[in-house]
Amino acid sequence: MKVTRDKWSKNFSEWFDKVLYEGEFYDYGRYPVKGVGVWMPYGFRLRRNVIYFIRELLDSTGHEEILLPLLIPQELLTRETQHIKGFESEVFWVTKGGSQDLDVKVSLRPTSEVAITYMESLWLNSYKQLPKKYYQIVSVFRYETKATRPMIRLREITTFKEAHTVHETYDDAQRQVEEAISIYSKFFDELGIPYVISERPEWDRFAGALHTFAFDTVMPDGKVIQIGTAHNLGQNFTKALDFKIQRKDGSLCYPNQTSYGISDRVIAVLISINGDDHGPVIFPKVSPLKVVVVPIPSKDTEEVTEKVMAYAKKVGNALSEAGIESVIDLDPEKTPGEKYYIWELKGVPLRAEVGPKELNNNTVLLKRRDTFQSKLVQFSDLISAVNEMLNLISKDLKYSAQKYLEEHVKYERSAQEAKSRISSSGGIVELPWCGDNSCGMKLEEIVDARVLGYPLKEKEVKDPCAVCGKTAKTVLRVAKTY
Amino acid sequence: MKVTRDKWSKNFSEWFDKVLYEGEFYDYGRYPVKGVGVWMPYGFRLRRNVIYFIRELLDSTGHEEILLPLLIPQELLTRETQHIKGFESEVFWVTKGGSQDLDVKVSLRPTSEVAITYMESLWLNSYKQLPKKYYQIVSVFRYETKATRPMIRLREITTFKEAHTVHETYDDAQRQVEEAISIYSKFFDELGIPYVISERPEWDRFAGALHTFAFDTVMPDGKVIQIGTAHNLGQNFTKALDFKIQRKDGSLCYPNQTSYGISDRVIAVLISINGDDHGPVIFPKVSPLKVVVVPIPSKDTEEVTEKVMAYAKKVGNALSEAGIESVIDLDPEKTPGEKYYIWELKGVPLRAEVGPKELNNNTVLLKRRDTFQSKLVQFSDLISAVNEMLNLISKDLKYSAQKYLEEHVKYERSAQEAKSRISSSGGIVELPWCGDNSCGMKLEEIVDARVLGYPLKEKEVKDPCAVCGKTAKTVLRVAKTY
Repeated sequence: MKVTRDKWSKNFSEWFDKVLYEGEFYDYGRYPVKGVGVWMPYGFRLRRNVIYFIRELLDSTGHEEILLPLLIPQELLTRETQHIKGFESEVFWVTKGGSQDLDVKVSLRPTSEVAITYMESLWLNSYKQLPKKYYQIVSVFRYETKATRPMIRLREITTFKEAHTVHETYDDAQRQVEEAISIYSKFFDELGIPYVISERPEWDRFAGALHTFAFDTVMPDGKVIQIGTAHNLGQNFTKALDFKIQRKDGSLCYPNQTSYGISDRVIAVLISINGDDHGPVIFPKVSPLKVVVVPIPSKDTEEVTEKVMAYAKKVGNALSEAGIESVIDLDPEKTPGEKYYIWELKGVPLRAEVGPKELNNNTVLLKRRDTFQSKLVQFSDLISAVNEMLNLISKDLKYSAQKYLEEHVKYERSAQEAKSRISSSGGIVELPWCGDNSCGMKLEEIVDARVLGYPLKEKEVKDPCAVCGKTAKTVLRVAKTY
Repeated sequence: MKVTRDKWSKNFSEWFDKVLYEGEFYDYGRYPVKGVGVWMPYGFRLRRNVIYFIRELLDSTGHEEILLPLLIPQELLTRETQHIKGFESEVFWVTKGGSQDLDVKVSLRPTSEVAITYMESLWLNSYKQLPKKYYQIVSVFRYETKATRPMIRLREITTFKEAHTVHETYDDAQRQVEEAISIYSKFFDELGIPYVISERPEWDRFAGALHTFAFDTVMPDGKVIQIGTAHNLGQNFTKALDFKIQRKDGSLCYPNQTSYGISDRVIAVLISINGDDHGPVIFPKVSPLKVVVVPIPSKDTEEVTEKVMAYAKKVGNALSEAGIESVIDLDPEKTPGEKYYIWELKGVPLRAEVGPKELNNNTVLLKRRDTFQSKLVQFSDLISAVNEMLNLISKDLKYSAQKYLEEHVKYERSAQEAKSRISSSGGIVELPWCGDNSCGMKLEEIVDARVLGYPLKEKEVKDPCAVCGKTAKTVLRVAKTY
């Protein structure tokens, strides 16, 4: 079987829609509300694995999970003025209960900074309680007027993991942002998702933040997608909500906060970045199934076929007993080829084929989903061979995704070169930049792309600023984004 | 320490509010939207344990978890006429996005029968795909105009586990309702929650159901609370949404459905049914912490105190290594008594006290939260002793909760006797009943209580119907309910 990547990368959008639905991940565009999707059983299991993993990372670093109400009253949502300016055009409002008009308009949370700050002002009053790190995993709502996309740009974002932390000083908050970056780095690393971290420019920060740091990656079509952000909020929200704590010396101060989030987009990326014309390859760590066992019936006798079926069950049971999530596809109405098609669309990383030959020799033919290379192993070596191949697949997927990303982050000296590179091959282009916002904003216009920001550590550049020609301080990253 | 139950049972409502907040389970009544609460970290961990357990039960019985959108458009919600009649006065409506009026009113789901039936009509078309069992765990919204109560009667119910199943025939659906009842029975049994199962009377079924079965239990104040329901929906929703499947013979039919749900109320009950003036006793299986280790400082020397602290850590670490969730309370600013107070309010089932005496003898004093009985054990026996005591606590809690329930389900011959029993000691009263709805509805008026329904198997009764005096067919259960 040839691995082709034609439809995958050349018509990524169509490929993605097909995989989401036919792979039974996510049903989009048919439910009668615009911009919302339905998590189907297989997709939900992938989502659950991702959620359990982020919980593990957050719980083990002292974060406490909570759950705040969905509804935020208008008065509360509008207290931080920068914040509401950033969100006011995209808030859904509930105005009626039964047939009655509500006395106050309440919003469906677009994010929860004001709600958590309100509760924190009731829960926390002393430096002794700090640092405090909360998080929740909830649906958030944005009345998107742009074109929506499944899992990527939605009116209901169903997997919004938002962390909110409180600290005595600005520096403590900044250190927390660094911890967040390190947790997210680990999260993406262990899911095989490569990324570039940028500080977002002043004109594109989270509404209400002093600093916004973002993780971006490149999709198969060359477009860039934001997959995680961390914000230093300073005292903006604590001042707006008059939330004070007592310092050690007895004086009162407004504490500093951070917030950081990831969303459904992580799952969109997991489904997208490893794949081919057959479908996606889901990274083994979070793939709902690691192995699908497919029996190959005998062409000659019913009796041998029955023995093959029994052998397939034995193989599947051995995998389950070893704690390897697997399924045995015994459907008598489907040919092996039809079964391959189905499980490839779900991105199951390994296939175990067992036919009359394997039955006779007490062997199993293991086939990798990513390369379609196969390996014949003895039944007695099954578990170790499967584990070894899953590790190898993980390593290779990670390597090729990283390589793809690196090939799509390029330096160009001029805005025109950047523009032509982006229009021909997408990705992220780094340009020399003097550090002035005005030059950054001009770049967005000239390149006709979005400024992602600049690296956390200034990068030495010899060329002059791509806009004004003055000495460059660092690089500015631009890209076409989702 | 004396175990008193004065405030607990006599002023249950005040006790409950205090425990929820001071035990850091749930913050209620302070967030600026009526009828919604905030899950605090400790309560969230309890909730998470309960959710993981119900997931385990549902996954292992072939249920598939999905996630449907929160928003249901008016046109869809109103398709099943009985259903919308039951809910229309309590639906929240979203009418605005940003500053624009939406073209169609969308509701915050009060429950998801119509939404899932809509998706099922796209996903399922053949008897071969049946039975199909879906579930989701989501927030649902009810615009309650009655007085709201934390975790019990809310405008945002944050832990609504709703299962939805599809079957070819009515009988298959009825068998599924029986499976649901058996799963819920196991769920409540393993959480130590006793229950009575009734079929709800015709006039109090779930809106759109042919049959509704419910689990009820009695709270410490004698009031009855519904903690789970299962509905046979027949073809009501499949007909309303024109959802057909192909039978084996090629003909088309409207499939039959069931739905069954449990909510936040399970957690309210877990916190309520075992307790005393010190707070709740959380059933060990789902208690976020099983043991709190409290060091008792030496009255004489700092040096001994330091050794005690080290010994407490050793005890806590041994528990953690054995997989027993525990915490070591080393706070130097609090006395042991203050610590006891805090952890009792959280209902941690066991306390391990270690002071200079225990340090010298290499022992640990284990104290049961429910009886305050203590047992001195050797450090070498710690793990087995803790496990044994946790088992014993579970058994005793279950026994006493069951006993309490049985004492509060009583038979009375007449409506007047029922009324006086309910007003004096609450609980459920069973009355002889002829089977006529009109008599049932009259009973509600005379007893001034709600009819819960009748037992699944008809109960033989010698006395005549408490209303009309004709021969009774079974008993009808009445109670004051939450």
